Amino acid sequence: DLGLLRTKAVPNGDGTYRISGQKIFISAGEHDMSDNIVHLVLARVEGAPEGVKGISLFIVPKFKVDAAGNPGERNTLSCGSLEEKMGIHGNSTCVMNYDEAEGTLLGELNGGLKAMFTMMNEARLGVGLQGLSVSEIAYQNAVSYAKDRLQGRSLSGAKAPDKKADPIIVHPDIRRSLMTMKAYNEAGRALALWTAIKSDVAHRSGDDKDRQAADDYTGLMTPVVKGVLTDKGFDHAVMAQQVFGGHGYIEEHGMSQFVRDARIAMIYEGANGIQALDLVGRKLAQNSGRAVQAFFKEVGEFCEENRTDEKMASFTKALKKGLSDLQAATMWLVQNAMAKPDNAGAASTDYMHLFGLVALGYMWAQMAKSAQAKLAEGANGAAPFYDTKLITARFFMERIMPETATRLARISSGADTLMALPAEAF
Amino acid sequence: DLGLLRTKAVPNGDGTYRISGQKIFISAGEHDMSDNIVHLVLARVEGAPEGVKGISLFIVPKFKVDAAGNPGERNTLSCGSLEEKMGIHGNSTCVMNYDEAEGTLLGELNGGLKAMFTMMNEARLGVGLQGLSVSEIAYQNAVSYAKDRLQGRSLSGAKAPDKKADPIIVHPDIRRSLMTMKAYNEAGRALALWTAIKSDVAHRSGDDKDRQAADDYTGLMTPVVKGVLTDKGFDHAVMAQQVFGGHGYIEEHGMSQFVRDARIAMIYEGANGIQALDLVGRKLAQNSGRAVQAFFKEVGEFCEENRTDEKMASFTKALKKGLSDLQAATMWLVQNAMAKPDNAGAASTDYMHLFGLVALGYMWAQMAKSAQAKLAEGANGAAPFYDTKLITARFFMERIMPETATRLARISSGADTLMALPAEAF
Repeated sequence: DLGLLRTKAVPNGDGTYRISGQKIFISAGEHDMSDNIVHLVLARVEGAPEGVKGISLFIVPKFKVDAAGNPGERNTLSCGSLEEKMGIHGNSTCVMNYDEAEGTLLGELNGGLKAMFTMMNEARLGVGLQGLSVSEIAYQNAVSYAKDRLQGRSLSGAKAPDKKADPIIVHPDIRRSLMTMKAYNEAGRALALWTAIKSDVAHRSGDDKDRQAADDYTGLMTPVVKGVLTDKGFDHAVMAQQVFGGHGYIEEHGMSQFVRDARIAMIYEGANGIQALDLVGRKLAQNSGRAVQAFFKEVGEFCEENRTDEKMASFTKALKKGLSDLQAATMWLVQNAMAKPDNAGAASTDYMHLFGLVALGYMWAQMAKSAQAKLAEGANGAAPFYDTKLITARFFMERIMPETATRLARISSGADTLMALPAEAF
Repeated sequence: DLGLLRTKAVPNGDGTYRISGQKIFISAGEHDMSDNIVHLVLARVEGAPEGVKGISLFIVPKFKVDAAGNPGERNTLSCGSLEEKMGIHGNSTCVMNYDEAEGTLLGELNGGLKAMFTMMNEARLGVGLQGLSVSEIAYQNAVSYAKDRLQGRSLSGAKAPDKKADPIIVHPDIRRSLMTMKAYNEAGRALALWTAIKSDVAHRSGDDKDRQAADDYTGLMTPVVKGVLTDKGFDHAVMAQQVFGGHGYIEEHGMSQFVRDARIAMIYEGANGIQALDLVGRKLAQNSGRAVQAFFKEVGEFCEENRTDEKMASFTKALKKGLSDLQAATMWLVQNAMAKPDNAGAASTDYMHLFGLVALGYMWAQMAKSAQAKLAEGANGAAPFYDTKLITARFFMERIMPETATRLARISSGADTLMALPAEAF
């Protein structure tokens, strides 16, 4: 809770400050892999307002920088201890102590929270990508193992009769896992790139309206990219590990490391519960819902434009059902969360995942359309690639999208059963 | 794949055998915490039929036992190495080498698989309990932390105005996790006890029909108890860890250990994909579906008997909807899996979880009925306990049971999208 932050900054009178306090969970807080370490530290200048409005951001280097710009005298900050963690062992996670360390104000006085969010918003997209990346590498390992490992026979008759058993990729339940990962990963990659393009437009377009629309989209999708891709990244690391059976549980194959490393992405840069609250509590309502309405309009128009295209019908129908569930959930929030904010909190995580399903489903519908256009043109020798896209899209629509109904049912059950018990009844 | 087993047993002529081969993933295969270690080893006697029909079970002690029954001469077996695992570090998981080690046949020649399943069926119920247990301890830790940790303010106004922030148990999204664990744990405990009673009846009843019915039930529910309670045990360890935020990721609080330890229960004693296949491929069809029909009848009759009880209506309605989804899924399997067995494999994991939801929902409906009966009697001072049961039951029906529809949708989408891709397209 940043409002409770106690680290102090006292002006030296020469434009610098003396920073004192302790920070925990500082990634790469101390190491000897670079000549200097530049810490960005939030602190409260004496007399600043209480809460988050009195927080300022400071640059606090490990070595003070001399006139020539080189690392010089040691600053009075030190690593108090290293955390023993579940994973990301390549990261020295430090307790950092600042003992009147010299720091320089970055940005405006008492504007620290806003300055930090510039970093945070980018970091959230980056962590979403981390979730996607571990999902992809875990998937690739699972595919490789499933093609190699012999166990049992295909239910529809031996597929490798020359061997004593079939490779496990013949088993439908193994394929269920592989297809789930594949379908999420390819749509997740599309969503990440789509969001990155919007972010570029938001920063660089010369057109005010385009810039605003892209900025709306990026803000709306940031918690979805972070929350959904990291939750799924972990799920898929576990799913890929399961393909290895007992061999996934020993460290030798590296699958355990993917699971242990993927776990942090659900926690840092704002735990996923916070992402869900950011989406439901802030992003939905901003500018009277301008961002979310634009997204609904875009997806709805895509469905409408392709409604009469027979080859697209199964994709647009499933996407439209998902969109309709998402719109119903949004309407439910509009009607029930203003008077009783706990209804928003109770809905938040399911809403974030419902949003993710529709966003990823929209990516698949677009990829299906593109694949069909390419196939109609002759595909230039890449027909198997586009056929695979269409099958994976169908899998996503048939097997993954139905989850939107469960999410909507949970959301519209409201906060009552969550909030009814007194704390001592747990 | 036990059919591929290569360990050999050669008769010594005196009733003993010389066992040679290697076994991996042997829990507590070597240690010095007991005077002797008795290994149960599957091996193939020379000339035995190929496949699982030629496997026999042997007793192979670390120290041969002398005439007085005491550990004597060292047998020729040894631990080749210890596995470095993700968790369960209290267990020495060994590679065991048998080099003409002396062993004694246990049970019938070539009857090893059946003998092993006597152990395995009990072990599967035990591992299900392991899943439930880690879910419970993780929950208890999360509750304790959620009452203690201060962060943010309740959306409905400060609940601890004397403190700088509220304990996080006031936040609906934290309660969503706590209630999910609580609702699953209490129903899981009921299911485990219910199954244990049936197992006692199956072994001890003097009535043939009772014994058969109880044995049917135990066989049917064993893969559900193992598969569902261990999948959920892991999910809940992760969920409880998330309540701790960054503090859950460091080893200090022990939440990481629960996650790492819970993971193995989804893998050993038959990975959960195997449990699902056991349910769909064996248990459903046995004796023309006698066991599953009896279960459907029992749950259906419970719903019918309580249909006109107003206080039970919301519980029986949700349970009946779940049962109806499960029956529809079962009918779909009957109609689609005979001609195309891949449809059974493609449905298996979702079917197992759908079955689990209905079984746990049935437990909650019974607990709700019992709680209401107690409250009607005056509850003898325990009204808060029974009120809590009713709220938790309602949570399960409103928030968890809707998942049955998604499971049914996946099952009835069939194997097509899973099996369409050639292996090289992954």
